[in-house]
Amino acid sequence: MQNPQVLAALQERLDSVSHTPSSYIETLPKAVKRRINALKQLQVKCAHIEAKFYEEVHDLERKYAALYQPLFDKRREFVTGDVEPTDAESEWHSENEEEDKLAGDMKSKVVIAEKEAEAAEEPAPRGIPEFWFTIFRNVDMLSELVQEYDEPILKHLQDIKVKFSDPGQPMSFVLEFHFEPNDYFTNSVLTKTYKMKSEPDKADPFSFEGPEIVDCDGCTIDWKKGKNVTVKTIKKKQKHKGRGTVRTITKQVPNDSFFNFFSPLKASGDGESLDEDSEFTLASDFEIGHFFRERIVPRAVLYFTGEAIEDDDNFEEGEEGEEEELEGDEEGEEEDDADASLKV
Amino acid sequence: MQNPQVLAALQERLDSVSHTPSSYIETLPKAVKRRINALKQLQVKCAHIEAKFYEEVHDLERKYAALYQPLFDKRREFVTGDVEPTDAESEWHSENEEEDKLAGDMKSKVVIAEKEAEAAEEPAPRGIPEFWFTIFRNVDMLSELVQEYDEPILKHLQDIKVKFSDPGQPMSFVLEFHFEPNDYFTNSVLTKTYKMKSEPDKADPFSFEGPEIVDCDGCTIDWKKGKNVTVKTIKKKQKHKGRGTVRTITKQVPNDSFFNFFSPLKASGDGESLDEDSEFTLASDFEIGHFFRERIVPRAVLYFTGEAIEDDDNFEEGEEGEEEELEGDEEGEEEDDADASLKV
Repeated sequence: MQNPQVLAALQERLDSVSHTPSSYIETLPKAVKRRINALKQLQVKCAHIEAKFYEEVHDLERKYAALYQPLFDKRREFVTGDVEPTDAESEWHSENEEEDKLAGDMKSKVVIAEKEAEAAEEPAPRGIPEFWFTIFRNVDMLSELVQEYDEPILKHLQDIKVKFSDPGQPMSFVLEFHFEPNDYFTNSVLTKTYKMKSEPDKADPFSFEGPEIVDCDGCTIDWKKGKNVTVKTIKKKQKHKGRGTVRTITKQVPNDSFFNFFSPLKASGDGESLDEDSEFTLASDFEIGHFFRERIVPRAVLYFTGEAIEDDDNFEEGEEGEEEELEGDEEGEEEDDADASLKV
Repeated sequence: MQNPQVLAALQERLDSVSHTPSSYIETLPKAVKRRINALKQLQVKCAHIEAKFYEEVHDLERKYAALYQPLFDKRREFVTGDVEPTDAESEWHSENEEEDKLAGDMKSKVVIAEKEAEAAEEPAPRGIPEFWFTIFRNVDMLSELVQEYDEPILKHLQDIKVKFSDPGQPMSFVLEFHFEPNDYFTNSVLTKTYKMKSEPDKADPFSFEGPEIVDCDGCTIDWKKGKNVTVKTIKKKQKHKGRGTVRTITKQVPNDSFFNFFSPLKASGDGESLDEDSEFTLASDFEIGHFFRERIVPRAVLYFTGEAIEDDDNFEEGEEGEEEELEGDEEGEEEDDADASLKV
C-alpha cells in the first residue's frame, strides 16, 4: 500500500465519492453491488410500511378533527355574532401588556376621545365583521386570486371547514366554504374536494414522503342572474366574408376570479397529460388546498390578526438567511424547533 | 357614505390592512376586540389538543419502529456480511436499465477487462465495506464534523439504530452507534439521547408546531490508551516569575472530532442561559440528531448510493428557485408533493 500510484488512485476514488457517489458505486465489486441491490429491495419494503404509517396518521387526524370541532363551532358562533363570549372566555393577556399599559396611560385621553367619537358614529357591529374576508386579504397566496368584484361576495363567507374522508374510503378531504344568504348565488356551501394518495410510486418508490394531493374536484355554483363573476361578456365585431357587412355580437369568456377555485382542472384520468401551464396551475391549486387545511382553518384567528403571517415570514427568512436568524438566543431555538417538527 | 372624507378614511383603513394587520386590529371597536380575544383563547385550547395529537403520532412511530426493525436487522446482516442475500433478494431493475444496456454493449469489453483485473487483484470483500462511513462522507452535515483521524474509527461503525422512549415515559429517542471491536475504544455501542417536548410554550402558545428536541445527552467513550481523538496534547513554555527560568509542560486540550458528538453541551437545567455560540452549537446538534432519526437511519442505502442526497438537493433548489423547478412537467408535481407531505 506504499505504492504512490495506488495511493493516488485511492485518493482519486476518495475524492470522487463526495461529489458523485453513484460513480463510486460503479467501481465496487459485483458481489458488493449485489448486496446494495438487496438493501434497495429492503428500502422499497420500508416505503410500503411507511405508507401504512401515514394512513394511520390520517386516521388519527380524523379522530382529532372531531376533538377540534367543538372549538371551531364556538369560533364560528363568535365570528357570526350568534353567541357572545363571556367575560371569562374573552380574557387575554397580551405579550406586550406592560408596554401597552405604559403607552396607554399616556394616550388614554386620546383613546377615550376616539372611542366616544366612534360610539357616536357607528352602531356596535355583530360578531367579527369580515373575519374570513380579512384572512383572504392577509394571506398573499389568496389575495392574489381575489379580484375587486370578488370582495363583496367573500364578505358573506362565514366559515371554512375541513372534512376528512370516512375510514376505509380513499384518502381525501373536503374544504367547505359556508356562506350566509347573499345576492350572488343560491348555494349555502361551496365545496372543494382534494384526493390524496399514500402509496409509493412504482417507478420511483424512494421519492415517497407521505400522502400527497393527486387530484381535486370543485362544485357547481348556482349564480343568480347576471352575478356570475367567473365569466365576462365581451363585444366582438364580426365582418361578413361575402358581403363585408359588420355586426357586433356578445360572447361570454372566462374571467379571473377567486371563484374559479371551484372549477379546477382535472389532474388526469383519461391518460392525456397536462401541458406545463396546466401543471403549474394545478400545483398552485394543490398548494392552496393544503394551506387551507393545514394552516388557515386550524389557526384562522392568527391569520386574521396577522400573527401567523409574521411567523410564516420569519420561517422563510430563517431558511434563506440562517445565520441572521440564529443570532438571537430565542430565535436559534425556534429555527430548530421548526426543523424538528417538520415531520414527527 | 358618499362623503369623500369618509371614503378616503375608509380607503386608508383598507390600505393599512394588507401591510400591517395588527394596526388594523387596533382600529376595531372594543366589542370586536373582545371577541377576537375569545378566539385566541380557543386557539390556545387547539394548541393543547394538537400536542396530544403529536403524542399519539409518537406512539404510532413506536409501533412502526417495531415493524421496520426486521428489515433494518436484515440490512445490518447484509452490510456486515453475516448473511448473504439470495438471488431473489438482490434482484434490482434500475430506472436507467435501458440506457445502461445500450451503453453496456458498447463498453462491455472494457468492463470485462476491468473485472478480470479486479478479480485478480482483490479478494472478494465481506458485506458492504465502509457502508456507514461512506454515508458520513456523503452527507455534508456529517462530513463537516469528521476529521482525518476520525476516519479509521468510523470504518468500524456497523449499524445505527433509533430507539424510542417507552409508552408513558417522557418523549425521547436514542441513537445507538454500534461498532465492531476496534483498537480505539472498548464500547461496543455509543449512544446519544435526544429529549423532546410536545407541549405549547406558555409564553408563546401559538408558535407550537409539534414535538421539538429540547435537550440531549451523550455517553462516556472508554478510549484505549493514547487513542482519544477528542483531546490533543500541546507543549507549552512556562517562565518562572521570580527566577526567570523556562520549563516546558504538556497539557491536554479539546480537539475537533466527530466523537465530540457524544459530549454535547447541556441545554439548560440550572437556570443559566447559554451564550450565542453555544446556542448555535446546540441547534446544529439537534438538527443532526433529527437528521439521523428522520432520514439517515430509515434510508441509509440511499445516502450510501447518493440517491437521497440528489433528492435533498433538488428539494432545496425547489425552495429557492421555484420557477426553474416548475419548468419541467414532472418537477412541478414533485415540488407540490414535497409540500403536501411536509406535515400530514
